[in-house]
Amino acid sequence: MPETKGKGKAVTWAAPLSGYSVSTKAVPHPRPGWKKGVAITDFVLRLGAIGAALGSAVTMGTNEELLPFFTQFLQFHAQWNDFPMFQFFVVANGVIGGYMILALPFSYVCIVRPYTIGPRLGLMIVDIVMMGVVTGAASSAAAIVYLSHNGSQDANWIAICQGYSNFCQTSSEAVVLSFVAEVFLMCLVPLSALALKRN
Amino acid sequence: MPETKGKGKAVTWAAPLSGYSVSTKAVPHPRPGWKKGVAITDFVLRLGAIGAALGSAVTMGTNEELLPFFTQFLQFHAQWNDFPMFQFFVVANGVIGGYMILALPFSYVCIVRPYTIGPRLGLMIVDIVMMGVVTGAASSAAAIVYLSHNGSQDANWIAICQGYSNFCQTSSEAVVLSFVAEVFLMCLVPLSALALKRN
Repeated sequence: MPETKGKGKAVTWAAPLSGYSVSTKAVPHPRPGWKKGVAITDFVLRLGAIGAALGSAVTMGTNEELLPFFTQFLQFHAQWNDFPMFQFFVVANGVIGGYMILALPFSYVCIVRPYTIGPRLGLMIVDIVMMGVVTGAASSAAAIVYLSHNGSQDANWIAICQGYSNFCQTSSEAVVLSFVAEVFLMCLVPLSALALKRN
Repeated sequence: MPETKGKGKAVTWAAPLSGYSVSTKAVPHPRPGWKKGVAITDFVLRLGAIGAALGSAVTMGTNEELLPFFTQFLQFHAQWNDFPMFQFFVVANGVIGGYMILALPFSYVCIVRPYTIGPRLGLMIVDIVMMGVVTGAASSAAAIVYLSHNGSQDANWIAICQGYSNFCQTSSEAVVLSFVAEVFLMCLVPLSALALKRN
C-alpha cells in the first residue's frame, strides 16, 4: 500500500511528526504557576512550623515554678524536667524547629525549580517522620498535663495543678503550640505529594 | 537496493510514524509493572496495619486485672477504662482498623488501575490524618504505661505496676502493637506519594 502513494504521502506524514516533537517539550510543564504556588505555600507553612515548634520548646524549657512557702525539709518546686515526657517534648520540638530551618533552602530550591523531584521527595519523607515525632511528643506531654490537672482516682495520683497553677498553665500553652506545629506538618505532607503528582 | 527512491522514502517515514503512534500510548505509562508493585505493596501494608490496629484495640480493650485479696472496703481492680488515655487508645485503634478495612477496596482499585489519581490522593490524605491519630493514641498511652511502671517522685505518683503486673504487661503489649500500626502507616504515606509521582 504505502509504495504506491509515493512522495506526496511522505510530506503529509512529516507535518504531524514535527507537531509531535513540539508537544513533547510542552507536556511536562503545562501549569508552572500552579506548581510555584504550591512551592511558596510550602515555604510559608515551614516558617509557621518553625515559629510554633521553637516557641513550644522555649515555653516548655523555661517552665518552672517555685512556691513561696517551704518547710524545713521540703521546698515546693516544679520544673519541666521533672517528667521525662516533658524532656522529650523540649528536645523533639527543638529538633523539629532546627530541621525546619535547615529545610528552608531546599524549600526555596523547589520554588525556583518547581519541577525538581529529588529535594521534594526527600523533604516529604523527613516531614512524615518529623510529624510522627512531634505528634508523639505533644500527645505524651498532653497526657501528663491532663494528669496534672485531673489526677487519677483509680491510680491514686493527685492533681498537682492545685499547687502549681502557673506551671500547669505554661505546660498547657506549650502543648497547644506543639499541636499547632503538628497541623503545619500535616498540611505540608499532602502539599508535597500534590507537587510530586504527575500532571 | 530499492527500485525507486520515492518508495524507499515513504517506507522510511512510515516506520518511525508507526513507532510514534505506539509510543504515544506508551509515554504516559512507561513502567506499569513498577506502579503495580507499589499498589500491591500498599495493599499488603494495609493488611498489616489492620492486624496491628485491631489486635492492639482488642488487647487493650480486654485488659483488666482483679487482685486476689480485698479488704472490707476496697477491692483491688484495675481496668483499661480507668484512664481516659486508654479509652482514647481503644477507640482510635478500632477506628483505624475499621478505616483500613474500608480502604481495602480502594487500594484494590489502585492495583487494577495503577494510574488513577483520585482514590490514591484521597487515601493518602486520610492516611496522614490516621497516622496522626494513631501516633497520638499510642504516645499518650505510652506515657501512662511509663508512669504506671516508674511513677513520678516529683509529683508523688506511685508506680501501680508493683501490684497490677499483668495489667501493665498487657498495656505495654497493646502500646507496642499500636506503634507497629503507626510504622505501617508511616510507610504507606510516602508509598502513595511515589505512586502519584509523575514519571
